[in-house]
Amino acid sequence: MALYALSRRLSAGSNSTTLLAVRFASSSRSYSSSFREERDTFGPIQVPSDKLWGAQTQRSLQNFDIGGSRERMPEPIIRAFGVLKKCAAKVNMEYGLDPNVGKAIMQAAQEVAEGKLNDHFPLVVWQTGSGTQSNMNANEVIANRAAEILGHKRGDKFVHPNDHVNRSQSSNDTFPTVMHIAAAMQINSRLIPSLKTLHGTLNSKSIEFKDIVKIGRTHTQDATPLTLGQEFSGYSTQVKYGIDRVIGTLPRMYQLAQGGTAVGTGLNTKKGFDAKIAAAVADETNLPFVTAENKFEALAAHDAFVETSGALNTIAASLMKIANDIRLLGSGPRCGLGELILPENEPGSSIMPGKVNPTQCEALTMVCAQVMGNHVAVTVGGSNGHFELNVFKPMIASCLLHSVRLVGDSSASFEKNCVRGIQANKERISKLLHESLMLVTSLNPKIGYDKAAAVAKTAHKEGTTLKEAALKLGVLSSEDFDKLVVPEKMLGPSD
Amino acid sequence: MALYALSRRLSAGSNSTTLLAVRFASSSRSYSSSFREERDTFGPIQVPSDKLWGAQTQRSLQNFDIGGSRERMPEPIIRAFGVLKKCAAKVNMEYGLDPNVGKAIMQAAQEVAEGKLNDHFPLVVWQTGSGTQSNMNANEVIANRAAEILGHKRGDKFVHPNDHVNRSQSSNDTFPTVMHIAAAMQINSRLIPSLKTLHGTLNSKSIEFKDIVKIGRTHTQDATPLTLGQEFSGYSTQVKYGIDRVIGTLPRMYQLAQGGTAVGTGLNTKKGFDAKIAAAVADETNLPFVTAENKFEALAAHDAFVETSGALNTIAASLMKIANDIRLLGSGPRCGLGELILPENEPGSSIMPGKVNPTQCEALTMVCAQVMGNHVAVTVGGSNGHFELNVFKPMIASCLLHSVRLVGDSSASFEKNCVRGIQANKERISKLLHESLMLVTSLNPKIGYDKAAAVAKTAHKEGTTLKEAALKLGVLSSEDFDKLVVPEKMLGPSD
Amino acid sequence: MALYALSRRLSAGSNSTTLLAVRFASSSRSYSSSFREERDTFGPIQVPSDKLWGAQTQRSLQNFDIGGSRERMPEPIIRAFGVLKKCAAKVNMEYGLDPNVGKAIMQAAQEVAEGKLNDHFPLVVWQTGSGTQSNMNANEVIANRAAEILGHKRGDKFVHPNDHVNRSQSSNDTFPTVMHIAAAMQINSRLIPSLKTLHGTLNSKSIEFKDIVKIGRTHTQDATPLTLGQEFSGYSTQVKYGIDRVIGTLPRMYQLAQGGTAVGTGLNTKKGFDAKIAAAVADETNLPFVTAENKFEALAAHDAFVETSGALNTIAASLMKIANDIRLLGSGPRCGLGELILPENEPGSSIMPGKVNPTQCEALTMVCAQVMGNHVAVTVGGSNGHFELNVFKPMIASCLLHSVRLVGDSSASFEKNCVRGIQANKERISKLLHESLMLVTSLNPKIGYDKAAAVAKTAHKEGTTLKEAALKLGVLSSEDFDKLVVPEKMLGPSD
Amino acid sequence: MALYALSRRLSAGSNSTTLLAVRFASSSRSYSSSFREERDTFGPIQVPSDKLWGAQTQRSLQNFDIGGSRERMPEPIIRAFGVLKKCAAKVNMEYGLDPNVGKAIMQAAQEVAEGKLNDHFPLVVWQTGSGTQSNMNANEVIANRAAEILGHKRGDKFVHPNDHVNRSQSSNDTFPTVMHIAAAMQINSRLIPSLKTLHGTLNSKSIEFKDIVKIGRTHTQDATPLTLGQEFSGYSTQVKYGIDRVIGTLPRMYQLAQGGTAVGTGLNTKKGFDAKIAAAVADETNLPFVTAENKFEALAAHDAFVETSGALNTIAASLMKIANDIRLLGSGPRCGLGELILPENEPGSSIMPGKVNPTQCEALTMVCAQVMGNHVAVTVGGSNGHFELNVFKPMIASCLLHSVRLVGDSSASFEKNCVRGIQANKERISKLLHESLMLVTSLNPKIGYDKAAAVAKTAHKEGTTLKEAALKLGVLSSEDFDKLVVPEKMLGPSD
Repeated sequence: MALYALSRRLSAGSNSTTLLAVRFASSSRSYSSSFREERDTFGPIQVPSDKLWGAQTQRSLQNFDIGGSRERMPEPIIRAFGVLKKCAAKVNMEYGLDPNVGKAIMQAAQEVAEGKLNDHFPLVVWQTGSGTQSNMNANEVIANRAAEILGHKRGDKFVHPNDHVNRSQSSNDTFPTVMHIAAAMQINSRLIPSLKTLHGTLNSKSIEFKDIVKIGRTHTQDATPLTLGQEFSGYSTQVKYGIDRVIGTLPRMYQLAQGGTAVGTGLNTKKGFDAKIAAAVADETNLPFVTAENKFEALAAHDAFVETSGALNTIAASLMKIANDIRLLGSGPRCGLGELILPENEPGSSIMPGKVNPTQCEALTMVCAQVMGNHVAVTVGGSNGHFELNVFKPMIASCLLHSVRLVGDSSASFEKNCVRGIQANKERISKLLHESLMLVTSLNPKIGYDKAAAVAKTAHKEGTTLKEAALKLGVLSSEDFDKLVVPEKMLGPSD
Repeated sequence: MALYALSRRLSAGSNSTTLLAVRFASSSRSYSSSFREERDTFGPIQVPSDKLWGAQTQRSLQNFDIGGSRERMPEPIIRAFGVLKKCAAKVNMEYGLDPNVGKAIMQAAQEVAEGKLNDHFPLVVWQTGSGTQSNMNANEVIANRAAEILGHKRGDKFVHPNDHVNRSQSSNDTFPTVMHIAAAMQINSRLIPSLKTLHGTLNSKSIEFKDIVKIGRTHTQDATPLTLGQEFSGYSTQVKYGIDRVIGTLPRMYQLAQGGTAVGTGLNTKKGFDAKIAAAVADETNLPFVTAENKFEALAAHDAFVETSGALNTIAASLMKIANDIRLLGSGPRCGLGELILPENEPGSSIMPGKVNPTQCEALTMVCAQVMGNHVAVTVGGSNGHFELNVFKPMIASCLLHSVRLVGDSSASFEKNCVRGIQANKERISKLLHESLMLVTSLNPKIGYDKAAAVAKTAHKEGTTLKEAALKLGVLSSEDFDKLVVPEKMLGPSD
Repeated sequence: MALYALSRRLSAGSNSTTLLAVRFASSSRSYSSSFREERDTFGPIQVPSDKLWGAQTQRSLQNFDIGGSRERMPEPIIRAFGVLKKCAAKVNMEYGLDPNVGKAIMQAAQEVAEGKLNDHFPLVVWQTGSGTQSNMNANEVIANRAAEILGHKRGDKFVHPNDHVNRSQSSNDTFPTVMHIAAAMQINSRLIPSLKTLHGTLNSKSIEFKDIVKIGRTHTQDATPLTLGQEFSGYSTQVKYGIDRVIGTLPRMYQLAQGGTAVGTGLNTKKGFDAKIAAAVADETNLPFVTAENKFEALAAHDAFVETSGALNTIAASLMKIANDIRLLGSGPRCGLGELILPENEPGSSIMPGKVNPTQCEALTMVCAQVMGNHVAVTVGGSNGHFELNVFKPMIASCLLHSVRLVGDSSASFEKNCVRGIQANKERISKLLHESLMLVTSLNPKIGYDKAAAVAKTAHKEGTTLKEAALKLGVLSSEDFDKLVVPEKMLGPSD
Repeated sequence: MALYALSRRLSAGSNSTTLLAVRFASSSRSYSSSFREERDTFGPIQVPSDKLWGAQTQRSLQNFDIGGSRERMPEPIIRAFGVLKKCAAKVNMEYGLDPNVGKAIMQAAQEVAEGKLNDHFPLVVWQTGSGTQSNMNANEVIANRAAEILGHKRGDKFVHPNDHVNRSQSSNDTFPTVMHIAAAMQINSRLIPSLKTLHGTLNSKSIEFKDIVKIGRTHTQDATPLTLGQEFSGYSTQVKYGIDRVIGTLPRMYQLAQGGTAVGTGLNTKKGFDAKIAAAVADETNLPFVTAENKFEALAAHDAFVETSGALNTIAASLMKIANDIRLLGSGPRCGLGELILPENEPGSSIMPGKVNPTQCEALTMVCAQVMGNHVAVTVGGSNGHFELNVFKPMIASCLLHSVRLVGDSSASFEKNCVRGIQANKERISKLLHESLMLVTSLNPKIGYDKAAAVAKTAHKEGTTLKEAALKLGVLSSEDFDKLVVPEKMLGPSD
């Protein structure tokens, strides 16, 4: 009966319970043979018996059939809800929440924080722009689970999703709070460690290659020499600054909106609630979260996300440059630059030994392009808030977390499967270096610019080495040439 | 033993079979208790017994631990591989492929095309930029499945992934081919129908509202009137043109790279293979695919994807505008514009009746932001091809398919759960219209500009209606006012 | 006195006439020693005597001190205003405009269309988002100039900016109309011809190089051969499709908003005005302009600009790819790929003969990046219209015209100063081709895969040619090798 | 004769001296009747007699006819060249440069730094990607001017552009150095002061409006109340953080590449030159410039620009939000929200008193869109460096300086012409606040949820006030209602 009412409401096309069940099953990618009734202010609704979620989650599932299960709210958001709801219960007990209920909520929330209840969070990113439905999903799951812990049944609201789990909270402050918790945790646990490892390995390579003198290239053209170590020191510096850049954005990421409730005023909370909950989250996560100094900004804008996304965008530009250089320097084996030997991780070709496709560079540069795109999405979302609430929250959170995860994982993969194993092709490097016409520069003081130019032009025209040209033109002896043309002396400023 | 060899190769950190098994299990999100050995030119490797994939898939799975299972190659790509491999077997039989083997491949490929073997495609987007590993995944799964169909065992290569399934093909032409097949199919089956439905409903609303005269707004400020139907006709036209735009890009999307093989020359294919396979795909999909007129362009660039993504970007700009207008026109219930009544799909608040959050607009505008971001990612990837091959293929494909899916689904959701149920708040519309000071314009011919301006200024200053001000100033009678100030006469050009 | 009143209004910081004059002088980059008074509904204001503009232009100049003279409204917009106002006067005479006045307006407008009055258009892009102030600038300049033609003084409004020049028009329909006129004219006169020339030259090169066999490169690594002509045919195809793409967007660019007036209804115009003016513009420009089928869409959205910008974005991706390839293929002279010899246009270095910096490629790729950026700006602006009017018009117009101009000019420069003079370095190409290990493929049929692989591996390991390795291993004779290893036979499908 | 040789080289289409002169004249927008000969290693070339530039500038002018004079290198870059060349001469004198020559260079460079020689810098952004041609432009102009100061003629190279002015420098380190100098100076002198003023005014408004209680809006829908001061405090905080964000990027902007010369090694400089020149620039500009710790990174990447552009992108997102809010809150006068009264700066309409178009908001939001676009261009350019040199330098510099200038100027204009004069429409704010149904919340404790909901529903359905509904339903007295429904008590957390 309730189902019938619902199906009428849903659409002309879904006018049977069978169809509805099928639709739901396909959305949730698992078939549930039985349902229980849950209720919200909109009325009763059927929910799969084996799921902990309630009425509002179920409605969102039906009203936002967008993108399929790949588009579910990112797991770090779900886990951050666990952290937040646990801390909220803890603080709420100080403000009078029944300790029995409070402790059950904390236990249930802990399970969410550990990812144990992921299957009970079916909602996609493309829902209400405040994330309300995911907040209610968390409230409903934790309430039902806490009720079970206390020996009650799902759906009987012994522990109430709103009155108990969401106490002193509004979706409008919880969702930005979990956005910040999730992003800060992922940045600290996944992104920065990977970047540090990559930086360390690039730095080691810079040291390992410090004595390998090679031709420099500017405008993609031959230029004066440098060491391969110097070249890698540029990459290593880029990554180091990248780490600095993302860390530099964290002070604003550590500010939590919690306590602002519906519009930033903090209506329906108690004084001090905001600072206490930030302290509890800091304690739980070992990260220096504080309460946001201005809750209106914290709800209505997500500039902190636009900013951190900008840091990731900068890192993407850096990594794109590094990976491009490495694949070009490793191009060949015969018809490219061939200065680097990249590790072989998989068959390049069954015929051509030595053919190594720089696949790690390819995965990494694809990630960089995606991060640049996600950054635009975050920017567009961040600029479109209206009045007291930005309603692009789930998209902004999803994009940033996507970028953080991808940069973290691909940096780690690149470090492990590529950079760590890079070898210098010393023979090739040396050959190119000594063929280069630009070394003629060092003859200037001895034979003068005009003769030096004649040497270079002769070599270029006849395709010979500089030395061959110099000897042919009779401008200096073989010994003098060898004494003067020394790339090793061209690697730094003079005394 | 083989496993030991592999683990040494993999990394210092994975030097035990146990660790490897654990790693694999966590990557594939399912634990397999037994393994079989598969081989490629790189040597033997352990593969879960219950999976159809082979050695090269397994290597990619281990070498590209990036993003987790959410980042798997999109399903439409997998299905398009099924379509392509089926067609390739069919054409290859014309060129001498053993019909027994060919038919088994066709049957196995059909299963892939139907999504029945999705679980055997574990690879993520962030792999080699040519999509080689996903092509090999398809070859391996189809070969093993075809072998089973013919009564042989997995891994014995009775049907060979390269020699049979990939015959006359290279990853470099198959992957762009499946990109085009997948995109064209999704655009035709998912995107255009949803946009057409949305267009139809907007158009119906435009007719339904054709007699409702309302205030116009320019610069967000009050302006001259128009009908609500006229306003919706603008939205409807935007969507109509959006459909035209995406259709206008399809001629280049229908061009298939197949037959270009490794670098575009078609080495190792037979003359006519390219046209035959395009015809077979056209036949299989009922879409007008043709062979690309220039295979070098088709491998080295993905301008067709950049172009179609540009059409989606334009549609996103349109939908952002429409959804923004609708939520602002529906703002309220008391303190906003309040001209539209949007359908209630879920509880807005347990206290405030009439509070309807425009959640469908929010989901849609978040999608629009994501599509704009994906477009930048596609553009960056598309611009970065080198020489004979663009190696941002999986990212480009993934982003475009993401955008197509999201725009299709969210348009459908928006149409069904929002636009279809929009009602005009006629009372409110009328009230605002008649309060507007700008109607004074129509008094000019009768009482002159100066007196009309005095009327408007008086009304503005004293907060009264125009009529009250006009009567107070004694510039014309009540009857004359009512005869002259008729918004219905301000809706078009005069005769 | 008037000036004093104005300065008070302006700001606390500009409270003297001296300061104001100085400010104005610095804004307009020319000092005017005398002023005349002009008036609008806001009151009197001082305007430089030697300028034709009026009060509203002057106010904008003072209120929008943003960016300096570089940011002035693009010249094609000014000229398009000339075209439009001329046509409007012509059509208005059919509807009763005094022919004396009408003809003087047409003459004055023609001067604007020819760029003769550019100095009288000082306003920047960053003004009101409807472009009203530039429309008034055009109205004021044309009115004053027409008055002069008729023997009257500037500022006496014998020809009235609003009543005569702007008759039957609103900024809200004129500005989008000039946007479309300017864009369509620039695309046809500047962009497409340059792209066609570039396409022609790339195509000629493709024919010129049709017999030069070279190594292919995929993943930046050595691959199977193709001809240099085939490689260039890919570039040529990209540019050809680029032309198709931009032409494909023109049908919507040829739609003119004129006749929609303030909100799209056409209030204050006469029936048929819209079609007549589009016909007049078509006649004046020789381009197939028509009246927009839906004026509401034409004012409230600029999807046509987002779409055309998307076509330019695709072209930018193509040109980025082409220019990158050319500079990499021309890298060297000794330590790069060195397959192409690029024309020398300026000194590379005073020491290194043969060093040619690929500066045309650099200018072009910088343009491509700018076009991608402008596209995002256009998209953001296009998505942010509200209600009956998009108020990002000047920015959208400016960005698209910027992109059109830059792509047109840089394509022309690239064609003339780079592509036209590209020569193949046949010796280098041949050397690389014959050193490549991948030619071993053609031995498979003769000596079998295993022996062929042994040959390749030996050559790779020992750094010898394939032939040397084959002879050393004794697997076939020198004659046989020369007969079998023929890159020229690897350039297409077999019979 | 020389001219003839040149014209042959230029192109088939420019084969007469007449055409060349015309072309040059149109490029430089000024006609020069006489020419002098200048030379570089490429040979002689005619240069306008009244210009200080030399041969390499002239070649660039002819080879890069892209975009016209609007596209000239931004003035802050020209001025920064003045600063740098002055400092270089000063430091070079310590290392042996003839003091007579050195002092003349310093004087000439000072003129460049002051903008006195701007007309002698005709080159556009779209040139070589290293900015070499602009560096040579600076060298040539300063050399010729210094020669004149010393009583010599232009073109006789008494002061040599390379040997004297460019001593110890390479374009590859000077151009990134002037990029950093220009950006840092503009940010400090133009951007940050404007943002600080805007912040100050927003903050003052926040205080001015602290007692004005108004309806809050979330999801664009009516929500619980806040003060107008609280709302403005959100804006003020956004701008404050924006200032923090851009300042946070400056440490990397203050690092100068100078001393790295051609590839980062510092070849041809003396030890200590890099630190000395950074100190001299710091001294000259009063900004804390230091020498870059890694010169390879400083030449090959422009991550610092991508980063700072990211900060501007965040600021653009903030300002877009603020300006959107302000124009929506100021919408009306009768049919919008009408809570704010924005200053009138120019005629809105000659008919509708009270119609104020929020033109400052429009200019600002257009700027924001442009900044987001420029950011993408900078990112694309920044990610595309190859090997030892990024060759997107002029575009990157131009885009960032464009964004800095536009945000600075438009923030100042917005502050002065809009924010400063914003008034609260207290009557309207109060009316909306008291009509809102959401105040019913405060009845819950007294009459219970069910009766409160009934009151709200009745009011909504019947279009009455809450009080009218409450009295009609008889649930409480008029006095009780007035005592309980007090928005002023809903503005913060409770004790």
